[in-house]
Amino acid sequence: MALWFDETYGGQIRFGLKLKRSIFHGKSEYQSVDVVETEVFGRALALEDAWMTSERDEAHYHEMIVHPALTVARRIERVLVIGGGDGGTVREVLRHAEVKHVTMVELDKMVVDACREHLPAFKVPWDDKRLTMRFEDGIAYLNNYKGELYDVILIDGSDPVGPAEGLYSSPFYESAKKCLTKDGVLVSQTESPIAMADDFARIVKTLRTSFKRAEPFFVPIPLYPSGMWSFTFASDALDPQAFDEARAKRIEDGARYYNRDIHRAAFAQPSFVRKLLG
Amino acid sequence: MALWFDETYGGQIRFGLKLKRSIFHGKSEYQSVDVVETEVFGRALALEDAWMTSERDEAHYHEMIVHPALTVARRIERVLVIGGGDGGTVREVLRHAEVKHVTMVELDKMVVDACREHLPAFKVPWDDKRLTMRFEDGIAYLNNYKGELYDVILIDGSDPVGPAEGLYSSPFYESAKKCLTKDGVLVSQTESPIAMADDFARIVKTLRTSFKRAEPFFVPIPLYPSGMWSFTFASDALDPQAFDEARAKRIEDGARYYNRDIHRAAFAQPSFVRKLLG
Repeated sequence: MALWFDETYGGQIRFGLKLKRSIFHGKSEYQSVDVVETEVFGRALALEDAWMTSERDEAHYHEMIVHPALTVARRIERVLVIGGGDGGTVREVLRHAEVKHVTMVELDKMVVDACREHLPAFKVPWDDKRLTMRFEDGIAYLNNYKGELYDVILIDGSDPVGPAEGLYSSPFYESAKKCLTKDGVLVSQTESPIAMADDFARIVKTLRTSFKRAEPFFVPIPLYPSGMWSFTFASDALDPQAFDEARAKRIEDGARYYNRDIHRAAFAQPSFVRKLLG
Repeated sequence: MALWFDETYGGQIRFGLKLKRSIFHGKSEYQSVDVVETEVFGRALALEDAWMTSERDEAHYHEMIVHPALTVARRIERVLVIGGGDGGTVREVLRHAEVKHVTMVELDKMVVDACREHLPAFKVPWDDKRLTMRFEDGIAYLNNYKGELYDVILIDGSDPVGPAEGLYSSPFYESAKKCLTKDGVLVSQTESPIAMADDFARIVKTLRTSFKRAEPFFVPIPLYPSGMWSFTFASDALDPQAFDEARAKRIEDGARYYNRDIHRAAFAQPSFVRKLLG
């Protein structure tokens, strides 16, 4: 019997992978959590029947949510990751030797537990002494935060529906900004400019009301609806193209997707995107 | 009853769209030909149950197979298109006023007939006096060609299996080169560097044995396996980045995907591509 796992988006598009086997299935307080094994994408994680990440393409996502921010921000000692339960984002953050402290705030402990056990190929340094894990709501965490400011904040949340909806709103960005240094950088995943064109445009425009500049950039993520994904670089002080050459070079050497050419190229906007944001 | 049409690639990945209705189904001498209507991608063409193009994303493909070549080649009076039965490629070629003559060589007349009748939104100027249509095998056409040399040759064929296989081989490229001016440009679609990584690498390397340079570039095509597609720019004389600024500007004004920033950015190679071509 051939087993397939399909994500259906908006009742109109579906993307499926043939499974070798199901590895983990759980139901947390927030969502269903699945880890499956596939032929072409290796092991993959799905939440609420939506593909999240896979061994084959996770580097595209995780390198690109991290390195444009961490090669441009001047100081990168203190980094906050909201979401990112599979650990790929903190793994890439921790590749920067200048990072002294990463806090990861993930709502759903079951995601971290499942990934830690069943996605060993992600090679997340969960026991790195620089990493602090907190299992709580990222919005509440930032609202109540009274500690030292962060140099970089990365929003690695799921789609803006359900539990993650508030991560893409003006009050959340204002609250994040209060926890960020003056020349800090915030990068968020901001959906597909094709499959979720309205959400994409709304979120980028919302970021532009909170930050002096907010520039989207684009990355192919085969697992996600339409395959063309966006992140947005938001900052009051910094040009997303002005990366630290030496830092970028060091990261490039061990990267599967990111390099300096890609950093420069990713911010080019197709004409339909210019129109959406126009 | 919900109707879905899924392309299954390699028995491992499938991408499906919900249909409003089937518009055309035919079986030619070469392949099955379908035109369907979908909610999110508009009308779409499939050959042998593989998605070929849709109203929603056709501009990504057609603008990018054409404009990098036609803004870099110095003379663009004579253009040859092999394949491209839906007409999107010749439409983009004919947007260049400098083009005096386009020959389109398509094996399967049923594809052209079906697209001409059922994809009116593609707005192909089928009756443009500069366009000559020939329904025959592109390989034989080039082998037997004795006419004036072409300034640009565009290979808009389907996957390198079945009838299109020979379009991605060394003998074919040598034969194409004999029909091309000394400072001419050949651009071919060259598959997905993710879903068909081996084919992609083999084809680019084959082009490099026939041309002094062959540089792949990348475009998101949501309908195709993995969503990340490649074209390759091959030339003995020209740098793919050295486009004619005024010509590119004119094209950009009416484009949905292509613009000068995208032209510059599309040639950036992700690290895994550098390794594949290494």
